[in-house]
Amino acid sequence: MEQTKYILTEKEMPTTWYNILPDLPKPLPPLLHPGTKEPTILPPPLFPAGMRDQEFSKERYIEIPEEVQDIYKLWRPTPLIRAYRLEKALDTPAKIFYKYEGVSPAGSHKLNTAVAQAYYAKKDGMKRFATETGAGQWGSALSMGCAFFGLECKVYMVKVSYNQKPYRRILMETWGAKCVASPSQDTEIGRKILAEDPNSPGSLGIAISEAIEDAFGREDTYYSIGSVINSVLLHQTIIGQEAKMQMEKAGLYPDIIVGCIGGGSNFAGTYLPFVKDKIEGKQPKLRIINVEPAACPSVTKGPYAWDYGDVAGMAPIAKMYTLGHTFIPPGIHAGGLRYHGMAPIICHLHQLGFVEAKAVPQVATFEAGVQFARTEGIIPAPEPNHGIRVAIDEALACKKSGESKTILIALSGHGHFDLGAYDEYLSGRLQDYDYPEEKVKEALTHLPEVKYVGA
Amino acid sequence: MEQTKYILTEKEMPTTWYNILPDLPKPLPPLLHPGTKEPTILPPPLFPAGMRDQEFSKERYIEIPEEVQDIYKLWRPTPLIRAYRLEKALDTPAKIFYKYEGVSPAGSHKLNTAVAQAYYAKKDGMKRFATETGAGQWGSALSMGCAFFGLECKVYMVKVSYNQKPYRRILMETWGAKCVASPSQDTEIGRKILAEDPNSPGSLGIAISEAIEDAFGREDTYYSIGSVINSVLLHQTIIGQEAKMQMEKAGLYPDIIVGCIGGGSNFAGTYLPFVKDKIEGKQPKLRIINVEPAACPSVTKGPYAWDYGDVAGMAPIAKMYTLGHTFIPPGIHAGGLRYHGMAPIICHLHQLGFVEAKAVPQVATFEAGVQFARTEGIIPAPEPNHGIRVAIDEALACKKSGESKTILIALSGHGHFDLGAYDEYLSGRLQDYDYPEEKVKEALTHLPEVKYVGA
Repeated sequence: MEQTKYILTEKEMPTTWYNILPDLPKPLPPLLHPGTKEPTILPPPLFPAGMRDQEFSKERYIEIPEEVQDIYKLWRPTPLIRAYRLEKALDTPAKIFYKYEGVSPAGSHKLNTAVAQAYYAKKDGMKRFATETGAGQWGSALSMGCAFFGLECKVYMVKVSYNQKPYRRILMETWGAKCVASPSQDTEIGRKILAEDPNSPGSLGIAISEAIEDAFGREDTYYSIGSVINSVLLHQTIIGQEAKMQMEKAGLYPDIIVGCIGGGSNFAGTYLPFVKDKIEGKQPKLRIINVEPAACPSVTKGPYAWDYGDVAGMAPIAKMYTLGHTFIPPGIHAGGLRYHGMAPIICHLHQLGFVEAKAVPQVATFEAGVQFARTEGIIPAPEPNHGIRVAIDEALACKKSGESKTILIALSGHGHFDLGAYDEYLSGRLQDYDYPEEKVKEALTHLPEVKYVGA
Repeated sequence: MEQTKYILTEKEMPTTWYNILPDLPKPLPPLLHPGTKEPTILPPPLFPAGMRDQEFSKERYIEIPEEVQDIYKLWRPTPLIRAYRLEKALDTPAKIFYKYEGVSPAGSHKLNTAVAQAYYAKKDGMKRFATETGAGQWGSALSMGCAFFGLECKVYMVKVSYNQKPYRRILMETWGAKCVASPSQDTEIGRKILAEDPNSPGSLGIAISEAIEDAFGREDTYYSIGSVINSVLLHQTIIGQEAKMQMEKAGLYPDIIVGCIGGGSNFAGTYLPFVKDKIEGKQPKLRIINVEPAACPSVTKGPYAWDYGDVAGMAPIAKMYTLGHTFIPPGIHAGGLRYHGMAPIICHLHQLGFVEAKAVPQVATFEAGVQFARTEGIIPAPEPNHGIRVAIDEALACKKSGESKTILIALSGHGHFDLGAYDEYLSGRLQDYDYPEEKVKEALTHLPEVKYVGA
């Protein structure tokens, strides 16, 4: 057998992040202030200076601070693996590769930005971060990032997940963070909601509002977000830069790159360095497939419109594919994909025709995940199972057509804390959700009215 | 900062296992048949021919089958990491390294032998494996190994763990294995115990007996064991051979190698290639510290005696440090260290003075594990926390003495499925257990009478 793993040494690890903004053939629409609805920056009291600078930077390559590089080296560069055993099981002439971020101590790509954010906060003299988490991936990663820079970390975790996934809370506490069920008694909005409904199960929207209130209320505290915004996608481009070098070592360039999108940071981080080649006309045939859940299909079903980033309308307004900021997606297990909008960079690239999108139903994604686990060993998180599903479908199409395409999967993390979902699948209890068309229609009536018509 | 990770390419991965038997200055005592009490081999109906050949082989280097190597390459060679951040937190001049086996898809070193055992069983035309598991590490690893060779796998999991750790069961099922709570209705001994006590919580001894009965009863089935015996330790020597090459790349040779011992396979697998240097007189000052739980201290407190490998007295008799085969250790969280005996090779080396042993109490091991997690990121399993505890103690001794010793930790796996134990520690509920002196005294009255006096 030829080589299985394409590894890089520490010396080969990229020392800069790749910023796609200067390479876009048409500029990215700005963020709008939720009040004035005029172009704005990331709000200074909430975000580190380092990230505010990066958000709309015109520099193509941005230095990764040395202290951040030193921490990355604990688990980076991550492996690129040829999925020989999956190929054989599918009996396909396709060549399948996966870039695996699950080797990080927090178990996913999220650590790439968590460490950077903690570094920039420390640099500004901040003492503390407040953030929200749904299923817990992001809260765990930020907890570890904060532990490494001696920062306190307060995580507002959606109550229903807090109760369902106690291991996620313990993970955060082991790294020294404080994690509370949201709505909590610790904020005004939390207390207000609990007064109205003491049994409120919480929602990501409520948790975001609590974290923002917390950060606004304390001078020593920043707010942290784990996806969607430009600077977070930037931090994730280390994945794609590594993957590109590794594909070169394998002597191949992908025909198809596939991965899941929720806020979009892992997959965009993987493909932005490849999109550059497409924009420059070097790889016109490269297909990049953003995969989303059929139950929350913002890019495939939503309009490209101005909308708030959060449910409460406190976050900036972005131009994006959206199902409406008041839309609450069905309770699929891929908690990281339950977001009404999408990273503006991904939406812009989709609008310009550089990337495409596809929606897949839940049960089919777990079928793909189990096939992956039984051939490649790794048990993927429910989110990347979406990308694996489409990769398998494309590989089976190759079998029919006889084509030997090269397929690269962005495998964002492992599913060690999501085994309850696998149990439902294996015992036949897992269900698909219909696309909630009526709920989306209703939510879309709440889009903000925006007069801004662009630069 | 200098280099953090010392990685090897696939081409550098060892292609042979290292067998210490021919290098021992005094031969290892044989196994005795539990009935005749005369020297015996591994029973043919239970073990693959490949392993029976290896168990008392005189070959120094034994070829790793190519198919096994191909699977190893999915996660091997594993990283050797310099713990700069832990050193800094301890303010020690010591240089601390850890060899991390938690990058394997099953999360520990156990996969190294699981894959080999599945390969040899397949080669013999077997269709099925039966095994026992306590906390679930071994059952998970064998499930994955079997999935890769198309073998069925039946795991008898101690009932109390089966109920406490549902994620472990789901892990096995995701890889296609069948896992039942032991005692079960599937064997005669299980039914007998359930008839006497329908609420029996089970024990490792019962689970072993069920697995052996299962394998004896079916011609298509082998029995599998995940530690203790020579051939299993042999399969784990890939760890130590890699670590030795990696330490060479770091330009250092360890002064101290430290790790936990339950059955002993991970730690012996790590240090046997280094012990070779000590036997040959090349590294007379090298210290190798076997760390065991104070609640189950076979090497530090037990006599070096002939005893059965299992509670029921069905397994061969080995010369080993033992607390008596009927001894049931207290319920510490490091389930993998709750074994009455110890790998004969480790006991022999201890007897000859090549390795030493130390026992540590439970709470102190979790304190070490949390300090490790907050500095190095990785959350270790409760078992390797024992080795980390002693490594930290040795590093703090270096701080006092001003010595800059090189310490190598065998970090056998992650604690993703053991977070309940961390929760107990963090909330102050975790307790130490006194050494159960009276229970051991009683158990030692049941040692078998053996007349065999050696070769």
